[in-house]
Amino acid sequence: MPTLIRNGRIITAVDDYVADILLENGRIQAIGASLSAGADVTVVDAGGLYVLPGGVDCHTHMENTFGDSTTCDTFESGTKAAAFGGTTTIIDFAFQNKGTSPLEAIARAQATAGDKASIDYGFHVIVTHVDDKVLEDMKVAIRHEGVSSFKMFMAYPNTVMVDDAAIFRAMRMVGQHGGMVALHAENGTIIELLIKEALEQGHTSPRYHGLTRPALMEGEATHRGIRLAELAEAPVYFVHLSAKEALKHVVEARDLGIPVFAETCPHYLFFDDSEYEKEGFDVARYVMSPPLRDKESQKALWTALKTDDLQLVSTDHCPFCMKEGHLGRVRQKPYGEDDFSRIPNGVPGVETRMTVIYDGGVRQNRITLNRFVELTSTAPAKLFGLFPRKGTIAVGSDADIVLFDPNECHTISAHTHHSNCDYTLFEGKHVHGRVKKVFLRGELIVDGDSWLGRPGNGRFVKRGEVGGY
Amino acid sequence: MPTLIRNGRIITAVDDYVADILLENGRIQAIGASLSAGADVTVVDAGGLYVLPGGVDCHTHMENTFGDSTTCDTFESGTKAAAFGGTTTIIDFAFQNKGTSPLEAIARAQATAGDKASIDYGFHVIVTHVDDKVLEDMKVAIRHEGVSSFKMFMAYPNTVMVDDAAIFRAMRMVGQHGGMVALHAENGTIIELLIKEALEQGHTSPRYHGLTRPALMEGEATHRGIRLAELAEAPVYFVHLSAKEALKHVVEARDLGIPVFAETCPHYLFFDDSEYEKEGFDVARYVMSPPLRDKESQKALWTALKTDDLQLVSTDHCPFCMKEGHLGRVRQKPYGEDDFSRIPNGVPGVETRMTVIYDGGVRQNRITLNRFVELTSTAPAKLFGLFPRKGTIAVGSDADIVLFDPNECHTISAHTHHSNCDYTLFEGKHVHGRVKKVFLRGELIVDGDSWLGRPGNGRFVKRGEVGGY
Amino acid sequence: MPTLIRNGRIITAVDDYVADILLENGRIQAIGASLSAGADVTVVDAGGLYVLPGGVDCHTHMENTFGDSTTCDTFESGTKAAAFGGTTTIIDFAFQNKGTSPLEAIARAQATAGDKASIDYGFHVIVTHVDDKVLEDMKVAIRHEGVSSFKMFMAYPNTVMVDDAAIFRAMRMVGQHGGMVALHAENGTIIELLIKEALEQGHTSPRYHGLTRPALMEGEATHRGIRLAELAEAPVYFVHLSAKEALKHVVEARDLGIPVFAETCPHYLFFDDSEYEKEGFDVARYVMSPPLRDKESQKALWTALKTDDLQLVSTDHCPFCMKEGHLGRVRQKPYGEDDFSRIPNGVPGVETRMTVIYDGGVRQNRITLNRFVELTSTAPAKLFGLFPRKGTIAVGSDADIVLFDPNECHTISAHTHHSNCDYTLFEGKHVHGRVKKVFLRGELIVDGDSWLGRPGNGRFVKRGEVGGY
Amino acid sequence: MPTLIRNGRIITAVDDYVADILLENGRIQAIGASLSAGADVTVVDAGGLYVLPGGVDCHTHMENTFGDSTTCDTFESGTKAAAFGGTTTIIDFAFQNKGTSPLEAIARAQATAGDKASIDYGFHVIVTHVDDKVLEDMKVAIRHEGVSSFKMFMAYPNTVMVDDAAIFRAMRMVGQHGGMVALHAENGTIIELLIKEALEQGHTSPRYHGLTRPALMEGEATHRGIRLAELAEAPVYFVHLSAKEALKHVVEARDLGIPVFAETCPHYLFFDDSEYEKEGFDVARYVMSPPLRDKESQKALWTALKTDDLQLVSTDHCPFCMKEGHLGRVRQKPYGEDDFSRIPNGVPGVETRMTVIYDGGVRQNRITLNRFVELTSTAPAKLFGLFPRKGTIAVGSDADIVLFDPNECHTISAHTHHSNCDYTLFEGKHVHGRVKKVFLRGELIVDGDSWLGRPGNGRFVKRGEVGGY
Repeated sequence: MPTLIRNGRIITAVDDYVADILLENGRIQAIGASLSAGADVTVVDAGGLYVLPGGVDCHTHMENTFGDSTTCDTFESGTKAAAFGGTTTIIDFAFQNKGTSPLEAIARAQATAGDKASIDYGFHVIVTHVDDKVLEDMKVAIRHEGVSSFKMFMAYPNTVMVDDAAIFRAMRMVGQHGGMVALHAENGTIIELLIKEALEQGHTSPRYHGLTRPALMEGEATHRGIRLAELAEAPVYFVHLSAKEALKHVVEARDLGIPVFAETCPHYLFFDDSEYEKEGFDVARYVMSPPLRDKESQKALWTALKTDDLQLVSTDHCPFCMKEGHLGRVRQKPYGEDDFSRIPNGVPGVETRMTVIYDGGVRQNRITLNRFVELTSTAPAKLFGLFPRKGTIAVGSDADIVLFDPNECHTISAHTHHSNCDYTLFEGKHVHGRVKKVFLRGELIVDGDSWLGRPGNGRFVKRGEVGGY
Repeated sequence: MPTLIRNGRIITAVDDYVADILLENGRIQAIGASLSAGADVTVVDAGGLYVLPGGVDCHTHMENTFGDSTTCDTFESGTKAAAFGGTTTIIDFAFQNKGTSPLEAIARAQATAGDKASIDYGFHVIVTHVDDKVLEDMKVAIRHEGVSSFKMFMAYPNTVMVDDAAIFRAMRMVGQHGGMVALHAENGTIIELLIKEALEQGHTSPRYHGLTRPALMEGEATHRGIRLAELAEAPVYFVHLSAKEALKHVVEARDLGIPVFAETCPHYLFFDDSEYEKEGFDVARYVMSPPLRDKESQKALWTALKTDDLQLVSTDHCPFCMKEGHLGRVRQKPYGEDDFSRIPNGVPGVETRMTVIYDGGVRQNRITLNRFVELTSTAPAKLFGLFPRKGTIAVGSDADIVLFDPNECHTISAHTHHSNCDYTLFEGKHVHGRVKKVFLRGELIVDGDSWLGRPGNGRFVKRGEVGGY
Repeated sequence: MPTLIRNGRIITAVDDYVADILLENGRIQAIGASLSAGADVTVVDAGGLYVLPGGVDCHTHMENTFGDSTTCDTFESGTKAAAFGGTTTIIDFAFQNKGTSPLEAIARAQATAGDKASIDYGFHVIVTHVDDKVLEDMKVAIRHEGVSSFKMFMAYPNTVMVDDAAIFRAMRMVGQHGGMVALHAENGTIIELLIKEALEQGHTSPRYHGLTRPALMEGEATHRGIRLAELAEAPVYFVHLSAKEALKHVVEARDLGIPVFAETCPHYLFFDDSEYEKEGFDVARYVMSPPLRDKESQKALWTALKTDDLQLVSTDHCPFCMKEGHLGRVRQKPYGEDDFSRIPNGVPGVETRMTVIYDGGVRQNRITLNRFVELTSTAPAKLFGLFPRKGTIAVGSDADIVLFDPNECHTISAHTHHSNCDYTLFEGKHVHGRVKKVFLRGELIVDGDSWLGRPGNGRFVKRGEVGGY
Repeated sequence: MPTLIRNGRIITAVDDYVADILLENGRIQAIGASLSAGADVTVVDAGGLYVLPGGVDCHTHMENTFGDSTTCDTFESGTKAAAFGGTTTIIDFAFQNKGTSPLEAIARAQATAGDKASIDYGFHVIVTHVDDKVLEDMKVAIRHEGVSSFKMFMAYPNTVMVDDAAIFRAMRMVGQHGGMVALHAENGTIIELLIKEALEQGHTSPRYHGLTRPALMEGEATHRGIRLAELAEAPVYFVHLSAKEALKHVVEARDLGIPVFAETCPHYLFFDDSEYEKEGFDVARYVMSPPLRDKESQKALWTALKTDDLQLVSTDHCPFCMKEGHLGRVRQKPYGEDDFSRIPNGVPGVETRMTVIYDGGVRQNRITLNRFVELTSTAPAKLFGLFPRKGTIAVGSDADIVLFDPNECHTISAHTHHSNCDYTLFEGKHVHGRVKKVFLRGELIVDGDSWLGRPGNGRFVKRGEVGGY
């Protein structure tokens, strides 16, 4: 059944105008100054609201297992939370077990998400092992499976870390076939040593997580990743860039026209490493990798969002509960009570991304309204091969639409959010800007506080070439 | 009478999709997957064509007088040429005579253009003298006259050059009121000395124009302009940036988030200073300021167009004939036959801009199709306060539309162009991409080789705040 | 009569060893592990002392007149103060009155200093006007008069400021003949405007001196000076570099091997612009140009002294009394009591340079002992054509020797110093390191607190090529 | 027996003067304008000659074994060659076998060199394995054995490469105790892959040595090494820096005052990668690591020698014969006839260093005469804890003196050199500047073409703290 959204202020990465939008058959059918509504059309008044393309969050971890722990959001709870936050597409991860094929990982991830996701989704493959066969399968994944991005780790030796040669080979292969490698850039060898030394010295509390992952070592790995990409003549993407020491290399490369891309995450934009000055286990809520950085980095990240040296904001939504056993989840944050290195890394974020970036970015005059849309929807869609199906409001695109009230205030709280996680870093934060309605391919799934979405209704989206941003 | 453009491939700075567009009352009324045409609607088939927002050229000189010479295009011939080139809005110049008000200059420019322009137009005021009254009138120009940009010269002492204090005062004033100063950045004091010395040594031929305007001195003035703007806490715009020595300062400032903007021109993108190795008066065709630069600069400019370190491509269309007396024009290029310093500076370009940037940029994979639209239409419109009326294809915007065939080839020639100028730098250049139809506010003014526009039909466009890009 | 200095620790810019030195006929005759002393030899025991080459201060203003005011030190009082500070050679200034020859200026300066100076001296010519004749005379000054450096002002319009063309012409000429232009780099046009505006707003107190001379405008002028020198293919020297905004351009140029040199002064190394937060006329003691800068600049200057991005430390000794009528001096600091722009610019420093740099530099581990000698003696001597006559301890060099006790403490005070000035910025500062004896060309002129020097005993030193550092 | 060198032009890193020098008891006893010679004194006339401090070459490989091959110079032949080249001290290498102590390596190296060396020598330990015991022994080596520098490899996996954690631990330890880590900075993991791929593709000829060691990967490793040192708060030294891609990181770090040091080698200053365009096995003579780089790098290296971004020139003398069996040497260059990866890496250089740097540097006006002495003698002595015993001409220093005729020409050839190697890269090069006499601790060991030195006469020199440059 078609829907006519009347009179909203339509914002894209470039445009800003008032018009009506007709949604039909899951697509945007027409945009006009005054569209007439047929009898069967549901009319929604969007006067005073922003009409935004649905958010695209290209870094989430739903029911992902790392070591002994599994994130507390399933695809069901996590995608519902995302929807309430104005996000209609996520890119999650398919994990290649060593010795197996990336294709197997994709199939497994699809099986996991299939019945549960209530918004659209895709996957990056986490590649933990590279050989000729794996490289061949990566090509197949790009060409036939709609999976064109591959995450590799420069950190976490003995589990997921791969060496420079593996990264280089993967970059070269996927670069030639329209794909892209995404890097977790921290020097794992050094960090492992620092962790070991800290523990040997009896430093077991969460704050040592921050103190053993120096910004210099994110800078080092970022530089190394850029040079490997340059040698491979391939694009490269840095996930969760947090430190000015890393950013400077991205800026320098981009000035030269080298295809280097990077995201940052809301937690790096709103929190800083002064949290690690505190003792006590409550600091575990700030245990994510990379850790929070200094205030100068925070300022530099905001500038880079404006100058397009950072292209987008993702969440790295990777929630673990602060209370063991919450909703039955075990081996959550308290798992590392006596050893910070066992605290599962990650924070929730998928539900708050759009609002905090709007409130802290647009309203604080750090970024324009168009740039807000670009950072949260258009750029991730373009960069990861979802565009123009996702990421914009244009005739023919998927009718993923968010009606957003820029003036309504609310207070963020874990008590009212939809994630399974029992905390949010933004607890108590009073923000302007609220998601009022969300349409997924033309269907209303969020209406104020009401949830109209259905598990399994989200679709796997085959993605095209990446890096075409 | 409404027009329905069917089935074209609509390209904006961000989008790329196939749809129908309905033009009505001079505006874009609707965009849809399949719009129905009423009886009174003219239907135009755009299948296989790009549908682009009309070009915005924010640097032209129609019937402008510099010293003893006047450019050979009137607003009539010049805007017609622009239209054939796919440009539907120009920003030309209003010249403040010393001791008079900028407002007087605006009125005079409007009187000159009013009956002749066949496309829409605005003006930058060339400010040659600053005092308290002038500053006050600049504020009035921004707030009430729709003229929010002011060009000042760091070159040409004794005629238009102003000192650093004048620039700073103007920047500070207009920056506080939503306006922007545009600078011609060359160190005029040094250049004047070099010219004098060259002539004293008997170097009178045109190539000495290039040899007496060093790239280092464009770099110097550009740096100085940026620092003045930084001190004034105001944005700044550099016209016709040509040298890598200047570009580096723009890049550095933009990396820091300082509001610095710059254009380059097609001649710097396609020609280089090897032209000045030639003897003879024919070199006069390459006499513009700044002069052509080295090949490294050319390469750097292309990279900067991609990385957004340069935001747009304007023409600095400033045509003088190579033959004295052509169409009755006198004191044209040959005026400096015995003294290169008397050769009027400038080249034609308004008619070829869109095509050469498409051909040399998009087809050579230096820039994307979206970026092409941004460089030639969206960015100038946004930067100079014309957006969203101009610069995009969105409901409610002016129906300034270009149908562009990306595959049709043609050969550029002064024999077939519409400017009064008797030459073009691109003579004989075979290009892909041709403007097929041009609509100005919904009215068809170019149809293949046919001219349907009318002098006086162009309107003066009041511009809003600049720099909001 | 020969002198044998026994057993001192000899420090040069590169060496550090214990030996005896024999001074004879004004020169260093021999250095040996154990020199035998003839009957006529005066033996001085230097055990436990550093034996340093006499300091070279290449920026002093003795009885110089600026506008209405004259510095309070004559060549007699000033050179005596210098000697007590361990400096045996100064380079002062010869002022070219507009319309007159640099040669005339040199003759006049020599006449002024001749009977009074008790240490050796040279002159830079302050060039206030350039024409063909002046350029020709500059060449003569280099070749025949032993004056190879010329100071030009980018500040102080309407008095000493010259335009870019004058600077460029001077650079080009002297660069070809072994000379060098030294620049006072501040954008005078902007500063004049800011001063005028401050006064119009009733801001008359001394702190506005600092607030109207922005660091950005020192940076601008420094960059401009470098580019002019690059175009002229000549070396350039920046006097009293104070701001990180200026330093960055010097660093960048030096990295590229461009012959750019700069000094800083002790006041910039030990004081910062927080002084200008204070109200009241006492702030006048900090009125020098450029003014004190921010703490980041201070830190950057120390780093640059270490990295050789700054080559030397001069004093810009330019003393005016805080009390009107002190020792009969009038139109001193109080001259600007009601108008900060009339406060004569400058601070004393010639007597404290060596000690404060030793104490704050060497003892604080910011620079090595060898570097201390290089900064205060060797580099200025080499850069300004005094080497090897001055600036080192080597056989054949002038026997200008300072015996320095690195461990003796004393408290700096205007009550005990030898300058005519009634204050010092370092009043009450407790320092390690004291000048014990000073030899000028073999003759003992300072012996503890005793003054053995004689006015007129100092000699004018013809300097050779500069920049050969 | 004392020696009096009369009337030479004494050049140090800072001074340049004519005087007599008295050598006695192996030391410099006195320097004077006119020293009297006792009866027992040998007088040497040095009129017209430069008197230089003996060269210090801190990177040589005498009878070192790498993999299957051993360099063709023994300590006997190699130090004799060095002496004829004006070098009186070398720092060679002591190789730590995995699982053994650095102290054992030092003892072994001393035993090898003891009877053979005819000039003075020290060792860097090549550290191939780090654990707590090894770290402890490194401290002992610094404090008690006079070995304060340790070389580690970022290249050559599976043989000598160590990981980042090992480098970091070593840096931290030695940095705290006055030592320094020297790095071979190339990304070994990537290079190994490229070599493997090249061989798989049938590329076996020597030129592939150059093509499989990209400059980008030297840049990467250099950056990594600097960041590790920064984290460890320790100095770092880069051996054989060859590429502009590496140099830029050194420049950047030094501008910030970070203690980063680097050498380059004569082959990078005079040859470039166009050699690898040639086919055939003769290219094996250019097989060293890193390989020759592009012409831009060569130019940048020369600039950096001038600006002190490179502090010294060492040879990396690592000679292998081009002819198998020459002087009985086997597994020399031809060992890799069918597989470039088996060609032993290295070139001779110890005998030509001083002359080619003088001829190509001083005479070509790229560096001053003082800087020549600093690069070849003073800086290596200071940086590696040999100063002031070595590296200068000052009273009390070792009487290691070279009499050098700057005007005498000769032609470099393997037919006349003293190394065992059967080729030199400089074959046939006609140079100005020749070593005439060499004194080692006061004893004449080279006199024109005559060899007066004796194996075993060279002494192991205990070195002090490094990095005190």
